[in-house]
Amino acid sequence: MFSDKFEHLVNALRILPSVGPKSAQRMALHLIMKQREGAQQLAQALENAIGYIHECQICHSLTEDDVCEICRSHERDERLLCVVESPADVMAIEQSGSYKGKYHVLGGHLSPLDGIGPNEIGIPELIQRLTNGVVQEVIIATNATVEGQATAHYLFEASKHLPISMTRIAQGVPQGGELEYVDSHTLSQALHNRMQIK
Amino acid sequence: MFSDKFEHLVNALRILPSVGPKSAQRMALHLIMKQREGAQQLAQALENAIGYIHECQICHSLTEDDVCEICRSHERDERLLCVVESPADVMAIEQSGSYKGKYHVLGGHLSPLDGIGPNEIGIPELIQRLTNGVVQEVIIATNATVEGQATAHYLFEASKHLPISMTRIAQGVPQGGELEYVDSHTLSQALHNRMQIK
Repeated sequence: MFSDKFEHLVNALRILPSVGPKSAQRMALHLIMKQREGAQQLAQALENAIGYIHECQICHSLTEDDVCEICRSHERDERLLCVVESPADVMAIEQSGSYKGKYHVLGGHLSPLDGIGPNEIGIPELIQRLTNGVVQEVIIATNATVEGQATAHYLFEASKHLPISMTRIAQGVPQGGELEYVDSHTLSQALHNRMQIK
Repeated sequence: MFSDKFEHLVNALRILPSVGPKSAQRMALHLIMKQREGAQQLAQALENAIGYIHECQICHSLTEDDVCEICRSHERDERLLCVVESPADVMAIEQSGSYKGKYHVLGGHLSPLDGIGPNEIGIPELIQRLTNGVVQEVIIATNATVEGQATAHYLFEASKHLPISMTRIAQGVPQGGELEYVDSHTLSQALHNRMQIK
């Protein structure tokens, strides 16, 4: 329709998450009809992001530098290390504003069927990092999925010889969650992990 | 978060229709983590689309050339002219596969409060086009909104001196629409425009 370049744009937009053919078409028309300048800026922002953003050499989160801002910061408590699956998790925790330690991004979770073992997600490197004598507590914040749990369990087993406290983020009913709509796995976890009211 | 270039990308993505801050963040992470090549292609596709796609000189739909494929085509019936508000409407009608005439895109609808009168949407130019002695029927396919209806009405009045049949696309219950969920305006239109069963 219209032209080849229009089709190319529609197809290119489909790499965005949860954008199907109809949305892509709507986006392409919107950009061409009403947001030419914005589209130009988006193209530039994409080039820049792809060209300059890469993994932090220490924590494997994202940065434009060799080492990310959090790893460089002296304000953050380096005795605390939070282990997550992806940079998106770092972002989510940062946005909660309730963590002041450092991070370690695994870049995935254990998934033996897909050939993803401890080496593929840098567990040996993480264990190495834990032997520096600085880290006192590791908070394992992998996802509360089957794979995330397995990864947490593996990590616990692999580092329990170290003189470090290992914790796992709490699992239970989310804030604002109505019991009626909470799934039964979560509910049984919430009952099992019940806490003394102080 | 992460870096300035990441923030720029998130902000740039927000120009896309129905993309809020959360979606934009998710898209940016997805592109950087999993779709670097796709992001590169998207940047290129945006540059190309903005650089090469513009209005057709005859019908004002979108094209890479001076005159669009539909206007150039000898396969299309030039005695039929369908008037629509935007290129998106041309696309929708083409995708229905049930129209073989030519188009005229107004680029909007009458909206006196916003200062959009007949001249702003090229009504004089359209009337001019209708006096070429070739067009025999004008199908007014502006939206079934208040503004679209007003535009259709104006167009009808402005061209009723011409020896041309003026029609309006049918308005009624959409295919697959259950009466229970159809709004009352549509339902009263559908009753009013009822047709003899043949």
